[in-house]
Order: sequence, then C-alpha cells, then structure tokens
Amino acid sequence: MSNEKTINIGLMGLGVVGSGVLRIIREKARVLAMETDRDLRVKKILVRDREKARGVDVEPALLTCDPGDILDDSSIHIVIELIGGVEPAYTYAKRAILAGKHLVTGNKDVMANHGPELLRLANEQNVDVYFEASVGGGIPLIGSFRSDLVANEIHEIYAIINGTTNYILTRMSREGAALADVLAEAQRLGFAEADPTKDVEGIDAAYKLAILTSLAFRTQVDPAAIYHEGIMQLEPADFRYAQDLGYVIKLLALARQDNGRYEAAVHPALVPQSAPLASVDGVYNAVYVVGDLVGNVMFYGRGAGSEPTASAIVADVIDVAHNIICGVTNRIPYSIDASKSLKPMDAVETRFYFRLWAADRPGVLAKIATVCGTHSISIASVIQKEADPVNQTAELVFTTHDAYERAMQAAVQDIAALDVVTRVAGFLRIVDVGESV
Amino acid sequence: MSNEKTINIGLMGLGVVGSGVLRIIREKARVLAMETDRDLRVKKILVRDREKARGVDVEPALLTCDPGDILDDSSIHIVIELIGGVEPAYTYAKRAILAGKHLVTGNKDVMANHGPELLRLANEQNVDVYFEASVGGGIPLIGSFRSDLVANEIHEIYAIINGTTNYILTRMSREGAALADVLAEAQRLGFAEADPTKDVEGIDAAYKLAILTSLAFRTQVDPAAIYHEGIMQLEPADFRYAQDLGYVIKLLALARQDNGRYEAAVHPALVPQSAPLASVDGVYNAVYVVGDLVGNVMFYGRGAGSEPTASAIVADVIDVAHNIICGVTNRIPYSIDASKSLKPMDAVETRFYFRLWAADRPGVLAKIATVCGTHSISIASVIQKEADPVNQTAELVFTTHDAYERAMQAAVQDIAALDVVTRVAGFLRIVDVGESV
Repeated sequence: MSNEKTINIGLMGLGVVGSGVLRIIREKARVLAMETDRDLRVKKILVRDREKARGVDVEPALLTCDPGDILDDSSIHIVIELIGGVEPAYTYAKRAILAGKHLVTGNKDVMANHGPELLRLANEQNVDVYFEASVGGGIPLIGSFRSDLVANEIHEIYAIINGTTNYILTRMSREGAALADVLAEAQRLGFAEADPTKDVEGIDAAYKLAILTSLAFRTQVDPAAIYHEGIMQLEPADFRYAQDLGYVIKLLALARQDNGRYEAAVHPALVPQSAPLASVDGVYNAVYVVGDLVGNVMFYGRGAGSEPTASAIVADVIDVAHNIICGVTNRIPYSIDASKSLKPMDAVETRFYFRLWAADRPGVLAKIATVCGTHSISIASVIQKEADPVNQTAELVFTTHDAYERAMQAAVQDIAALDVVTRVAGFLRIVDVGESV
Repeated sequence: MSNEKTINIGLMGLGVVGSGVLRIIREKARVLAMETDRDLRVKKILVRDREKARGVDVEPALLTCDPGDILDDSSIHIVIELIGGVEPAYTYAKRAILAGKHLVTGNKDVMANHGPELLRLANEQNVDVYFEASVGGGIPLIGSFRSDLVANEIHEIYAIINGTTNYILTRMSREGAALADVLAEAQRLGFAEADPTKDVEGIDAAYKLAILTSLAFRTQVDPAAIYHEGIMQLEPADFRYAQDLGYVIKLLALARQDNGRYEAAVHPALVPQSAPLASVDGVYNAVYVVGDLVGNVMFYGRGAGSEPTASAIVADVIDVAHNIICGVTNRIPYSIDASKSLKPMDAVETRFYFRLWAADRPGVLAKIATVCGTHSISIASVIQKEADPVNQTAELVFTTHDAYERAMQAAVQDIAALDVVTRVAGFLRIVDVGESV
C-alpha cells in the first residue's frame, strides 16, 4: 500500500473544501504524481459523522471520528486541516506538528490567532506549515508575501477579502436596494451564511487581515486588536451619494506601516471609482499592496469556494512534497519584529464622508462648519442633496480633508447634538487608494 | 573579504535595472542579511564601458569589461544577468550555468528563446535558474505559475504585458488623440524607446507571452511562432466606436489551450468595459488567468522600471540564497509536455469588429451581408455611424459572432473588393474576457 514513492495525507474535515481537495487529489493523481514524482494518497479522513452523505465518493474505511487515527499514525506525512474554527482545529494542528507532520491548513481562525506560535513550533520540529488557503481562496497571497515581494518594505495593504459583503455591496450599489433585502437574497443563493455576523461585522476580514499584515509587516498582529466596523448601517442613499462624489463603497481591510508603528482596520470605505479596487465586484476578492520597490500590485480572484480553495491547498501539498523529496524544511524562515506596535484607531488619520438631516434654513451650515473648525476638521466639500418640505429639513453631504479619527468622532457627536440637526445618517471613511497612470 | 556567511554575486549589466539592483542590495543589506542569514555581496560588475557615468556610486575596482572575471571566478555563487538581448547574454548565461553558478535573469529574449534549454542545463548542473523579472516587472507571475497555481490546468491567459503600448492606448482612449502624436509624447516622456518597433509591433509582448505560456501550459512555446499584430493601424475612430459598443481597446497577449492544442497571439482587441483588464491603464500591466480550479485570477502592477524589476531580481536572489543555505537546487522540477502543438492563427475562432466606408445608398448593406454569409460569418451588430455628404459615403461599423480567422480574413478581402466599398478602415478582434460576479 505504502512505499517510499508515496506521500500519505491525513485529511481533517470533509466539508465543502475538504471534499474538493479529496476529489482533486484523486482526479488529478496522474498530473500530481508527474509534478512531485510521488503518489499523493489520502490515507485517513477525520469526520464528525461517518454516516453523513458526502459530495464525494469515499470508501467508509477511510473515514474516522478519532483524530488519533491521523495524528498518531507515523506513516502520515502531511495533515491537511480543514475543520475551521479555533478548537479543536488548533489542538489538532499543534499535535500534528509535535508528531513531526507537515501541516497544510485553510483555517484563518487558527492562523490569525496562533499562526506565529505554530510557525515557531514547526521550525523547532523541522516540519513545514503552509496556509495559502487561509486568505483569499486560490489567489496567491501568502506565497507572494513570503517570496516574491520579500525585497520590499510593504507600506500599505488595501484588501477586499470578504466575498459575502462584497457581493452585498455590489448589489446595493447596482440596484439601489436596501441591505436587508440583498442580505436575504444572498442567504437564499448561498453567498451568505444563515448567521452572517462574522462576515457583515467585518470579523472574518479582520482575521484575514491579521494573517496578511503579520506576513507583510513581519510582526505579530493580534486579530482581536484590529478595529472592525461592519456594513449593516449602510443605506441606499450612501451608495447614491458615493457615486455622485466619484466613489464606490467597499468593505476594506487596510493596514499601513510607518516608523515602526502600523494601523490595521476593517470598515466600509469610499474608494475612488477609478481605483483598481473599485471594479472588484461580487464575490471576488482583491488585495492591493504598496511596496517601496514594486510600487502598487494587486491580486484578484475568487476568495472562497470549494475549488479555488482546494487549488491553494493542493498547491501547498505539492510544495511540501517538493520539500520532503529534497529533505528540507523551513526553507524560508519567518522573521518577526516584535517591536512594531499597533496604532490605536483614534490616532489614525483619514478623510471622512458624513451626511445629516438638518433644519432647512439659513445659518445651519455655519453652525456645522463651526463645530468642525473647533475640532480642526477641514471640510473638503458640502452638497445639499434633498429637502423634505413637510419637516422643513434638508439632507447635507460632507466630505473632509485628512483628520484624526478621534477629532472626527468628537465632531460628529457635537454636530448630532446641535438643535438644528435632526439626524447624522451616514458616516464613512474615504480611502483614496492609488489610481492607475 | 569572503567567508561562509557571504554569498557572492556577479552582476552582468549596470543599466537602469542593474543600477537599481546594486543600490537595493546595498541599501537593504541589513534586512537582506536578516532574511537570508548571509551577507549578499556584489563582487564584480560587467559593464561595456568602465568610464561611463552611472546612476549609482560604484567603486571602479568592481567594474570589469571581461565576462571571465565573473564567469571564471569560482567564489561567485550567483550571476545576475541584466544585459538584455539574446547575445552575448545567452552565451554568458550558459557559461554561468556550466560553471556551476546559479542564474537570476530579467532577460525575456533569452528566456523566451532559450529558457527550456537553460532550465534543462541547470537541472543537469545542479544549479538554479530564476527569471521572475523577465515578465511583468515585480508582479509575481513566474512564482505563481510554478507554485501557487500548480494544481490547476490553466485554460486561458489574457495579458497586458507591454507598458509602452498600454500607455499609448490609454491616452488615445482618453483624449481621442492620434497615435503618432501620443507616441511622440510617450517618447519624450521616456515611456517609449527611440525605436519603438518591438513594443508597438507586439514583439516584446510575444516574447513575454512565450515565457508565461511555456510555464502555464507546460510546453515549449517558440516566440517566433506566436502571431503578433501591433497598434500602429489604430485610429481615433476605433476608440470612439469601441466605447459606443461597450468596449475598450487593449493590446492583448492571449493564449488558450484545449485538447493538447493551444493558441497564442498578440494583437489589439476589444475588451468589455466591465472586465477587470479594461481598467488596467497607463504603464500598468496585468495578467488574467483562467484555471480549472482557481477560476479567474488577475495579477496587476507596474510591468517595468528600475525598482519594480529590481524587486523581482532581489526576491529571486533571496530565494536562491535560501536554496544555497538548505543545499537544494531544482526543488521544483520543470515538466514539459512536448506533444502540445500550436494552433495556426487561421484556425482560431473569435468575434470580430470592422468598419468601412461605403456608398451611402440602398442595397449596400445587403451586398456586405451577402459576402459575410458566403464565408459563414454571422453579423452580430451593424451601426451606420457617419455620412460624408460630399463623397456620398457612409461609415458602417460591424461586429460578428464567433468566426474563424481564415474565414474572416477572406470575407474582409472580398468586402474591400466590392465596388460600393471605398475602404475597410478598422479590423479588430473582440475578446469577451470574463467579467466579475
């Protein structure tokens, strides 16, 4: 069954991605054997329920509910972890490494929270940990940061890395539809989970950003420390006004570093229509990177799904196989600069967009402008958009020049408290991310 | 001077990119040493003229006009070849490999024409050949095809890989300007060479496409066999009509494979405005790839310039350094399927756009349609755009459904020969490359 020409794989998790990985390793056996000069053999598969119907044909003898059947089997070279969530995946991953097995994982929760620790451990144990599939499906991101962009100091990352929210925002933008309606439709179509909290609140994106930023900035980013703000408060009016102003609304995961400090945040943002990120629509993801040498580069593709994610998993397995054949591990070392610190969101500077309903009479604008001035907020543009003749109110849309988050938050509070202001209805950051030419 | 902790580099060529590489290796010495645990030292630099002024400070003792000072120096581990052109670069590259040196090159001419041979030779000699910088500057392409996308069968590649022509087309599209004027301006600004033939005729793009296609399709693509057509015939009217039809004009390098046969061509094409490639403007490059697993992915960035190209060169040097430290070479083998054959351009199927001036009288359209029918060309749309009352002619713009190149060329010839047709003025292929969502 097994010989020197076989690489044995233990697959943990047989959900959508796991089934895809199993199917591809089998269907492409000939090509993969040609590429690696080894037979890749899935020897055991960890599942929760052995009786459950699968999207892939699988011999019952391969299935087990006991993780020990993989973790304690010394003939298994590579563990593919596709369980998802922190536990028990983290414990299994750690046990696999300690048992001298290479780990290939698509688990963003584990890698965002425990990545640096697992990588250190892998280094001590002389095994490899690969995690290309943990961010952006099959888009080559981890490999690009680790190898191709390694000569760069990465200054900025702007990423659309949550397909669910990008699908929702794209439809809201195109159809002028309300968020609740589009979300319900997305759930019906399978583009959003029954409980979409992690997606629509920006938590999923923050995890992925932690992974990317840790690699790009060579530091350890705590995902829980990343400011995140979701999309639930967005209204159709915001999309209309964004368009009038020459922008689109995207849920951005962004990180910048400067002088040993870095920022990292997830929030909806106004992005210039002419920016490459602006045309990243639907379930597509993209990561736009600014490096000191390479300038602006962007990676674009499907950020989720069985096959795109399996594309990354199987590529990682092949790379580990090359390492096994050459007898090398940890060929590319991880270097971490622990001295870098996260800038608090309060201290981040950016441009802002906000809109409000105020009394439709002279002097109102002056009052608002005075509040802004008090907080050193410089208004870049103001447009009176709509008037409500019954309530005698008008809608005003403002954009600002660069301002500190702290100052802007305080200003908005003071503005909302003005007696002439009925309601501050929209509040978004403007991110003037690079344009072509 | 040298010890086990030093990796010695011989740099061949000290032009724009070579100077950038030298400067970066020096300025980033500390970071690079941290990354590789070795000092990277440029020991010798081959130049044509030792007295020439340089954009970088360099000790005269480092410079040599004798390639033997690098190729015969057994202490040199890595040769960076940035001479450009096939000879003498190819001969030097081969000598370096035969002398047991690793090769890092940004030379598209050498890699397009002799890449497979050099890679075979490197395999025999147990050295590495890296060439990320040969296509798309610092955009991670070679590494992505070799590692990250390796589980995929790549079906299609659509690339904008010549910055000069993309700059010209972008300006023509935005300004409605004539090609000659924009080209002259591009030359003045340094975006086009004094002799721009290789760029504007699509030859440069064909070389780069040969490199990408060889990797992606795992075959040996002869750059001279790639059909190429340049941009010189494009007129402002084509850009106007393309826009009316919902397209932009791009110089596309495209390749597709199917059942062991592949197509590869470079020509201007109408690309849908909503396609990600459509918004790749100015000197930017992008490569849009369709794989069986990953779906559509796109890589975007600056395709040329000193620093972006140096970003790729230095990353390759670091990767070779990792290999040297681990004592491995040819970790990722090249596999080539020599049985794949290039489909002749005649047999390629696509949609077409053409426009013509014809007599402005009844029955003209019927005659043209009849010719198309004879050649089994199905017209998708026809618009009468402009009339010239003096000559009593009108301009007609056609698009077709999928048709064979051979049939379309014959049809256009027959149409041009019609007595009612004054002139066939524009002839372009339509490439309906994927859209988001």
